[in-house]
Amino acid sequence: MKTYLDCYACFIRQALDGARFAGADEAQQQTIIKKTLQAMLTFDPACTPPELASQIQHLVHQETGDPNPYRKAKESSTKEALDLYSELKTRIANASDPLDCAIRVSIAGNIIDLGALATYNLWETIERVLSQPFAIDDKTAFYDKLAHCRQILYLADNAGETVFDRLLIERLPAPVTYAVKAAAMLNDATIEDAEAAGLHTAATLVSTGADALGTPLQQCSPAFRTRYEEADLIIAKGQANYETLSPGDNRIFFLLQVKCPIIARDAGAPTGSIILKQGNTSPTAKTSK
Amino acid sequence: MKTYLDCYACFIRQALDGARFAGADEAQQQTIIKKTLQAMLTFDPACTPPELASQIQHLVHQETGDPNPYRKAKESSTKEALDLYSELKTRIANASDPLDCAIRVSIAGNIIDLGALATYNLWETIERVLSQPFAIDDKTAFYDKLAHCRQILYLADNAGETVFDRLLIERLPAPVTYAVKAAAMLNDATIEDAEAAGLHTAATLVSTGADALGTPLQQCSPAFRTRYEEADLIIAKGQANYETLSPGDNRIFFLLQVKCPIIARDAGAPTGSIILKQGNTSPTAKTSK
Repeated sequence: MKTYLDCYACFIRQALDGARFAGADEAQQQTIIKKTLQAMLTFDPACTPPELASQIQHLVHQETGDPNPYRKAKESSTKEALDLYSELKTRIANASDPLDCAIRVSIAGNIIDLGALATYNLWETIERVLSQPFAIDDKTAFYDKLAHCRQILYLADNAGETVFDRLLIERLPAPVTYAVKAAAMLNDATIEDAEAAGLHTAATLVSTGADALGTPLQQCSPAFRTRYEEADLIIAKGQANYETLSPGDNRIFFLLQVKCPIIARDAGAPTGSIILKQGNTSPTAKTSK
Repeated sequence: MKTYLDCYACFIRQALDGARFAGADEAQQQTIIKKTLQAMLTFDPACTPPELASQIQHLVHQETGDPNPYRKAKESSTKEALDLYSELKTRIANASDPLDCAIRVSIAGNIIDLGALATYNLWETIERVLSQPFAIDDKTAFYDKLAHCRQILYLADNAGETVFDRLLIERLPAPVTYAVKAAAMLNDATIEDAEAAGLHTAATLVSTGADALGTPLQQCSPAFRTRYEEADLIIAKGQANYETLSPGDNRIFFLLQVKCPIIARDAGAPTGSIILKQGNTSPTAKTSK
């Protein structure tokens, strides 16, 4: 997805949020905003929003000397999510359609997105997402791919959301590789964050090889790109994975909550909605192996 | 009120909104955003937010060649408000406390703020504001000043909101001078907009002498400044008047809906609340004549 001019206001907000999470004082915040404005003057709008947002977060890390401003927030989100793990696992097991319930739980966890939202109510979100209709529902195609796949590549999003992903992974019928960021970027999960959420008990943990939001393939490691090419089925969680990979190919299923009006317009689903959307299935798209 | 770094994201959004209201194409919008970023690099944070926002709107006018991008939006807001005039006048007349009801109607009209909000629901807002408690309620002091004043200076805000102001002005016990902007600035009312709303039948119309948001006194005409100095009682509508005049003196009463978290923090009232707040009454403040 290309970057729209509407994204520019969010870049500034993310710079300021990042600076504050790093504990920057007023003068440092001013410097960071000035450097952000300067960086934005040279932005290439052909890049995806997460690629540009990543540049700004690198700037925040450099200026504050803190390579992981969201560390405490990530620990706290993971702890909050782990506290719900058993209750949600029981709820999924007792559901009339456990896989559907697990998919919804995983999407509910996508509210833990400090790049998009300053605050959220986790329990309210779970209750909403468990009963909300999908704005885009490619579940039939998803179930079909699931029934025939040998391996699944699961592209993670935020720390804490990882626990909700784990609950879905524990219901999936094939081995899962769970791909996280190579280094801290907003509150996105790294290997350390995924381990804290217990993901190593449910999946093989790998890194995308990129310290960048979403999955910008050209920045990812060759090893990761090979995994990506070889995957039967790819689950891409959250907005940044949608932004960097959409329209994608028909092996990809985007699972997310739509939290921004620009992504809403691009995906054709309103803000506040939940989607399970298959990548582009046109004949020109890459086909499933 | 000083400009916070939080305001910078809004400046970008306002630039883009203004460009689009002026019908700017994608290339023009990109130019406007680039020039906005450049302008923001030299911003003096000691200025109030409306002063800086006004600079950006001047830039939009210059780049698009349209000195009044919100003309149609203003005409439409005024028409929508005039359609409600008779019904609201009857409602005020039949209220148990007509002046309180008229104050609330005037505050309800403050939702028509295209600088702060892209969309609003006018009728829902009226119903809400008519029953909502004031987060800051200096009504006793306001009624006391009203009972003793010889003349009132009423600082207008947006076109369309003007009709709601007229309903309040028709209930005030002293002659009112209604001050609007010298030229178009976002959807703020000018003399032309105020006349279209029938304000000339209820008040003496004057201009602040400044084509700027709010009431930045140093940019206003000497004639306006004299009126300001001589007023017994000043009603300052909306966020921009609050931002440019707060803390003010005890002749001023700020009437507004709080639509932004920064003003909420400054005023000590939550976003979504309504306030009737007297200017600073400390001994160092200017006292009433």
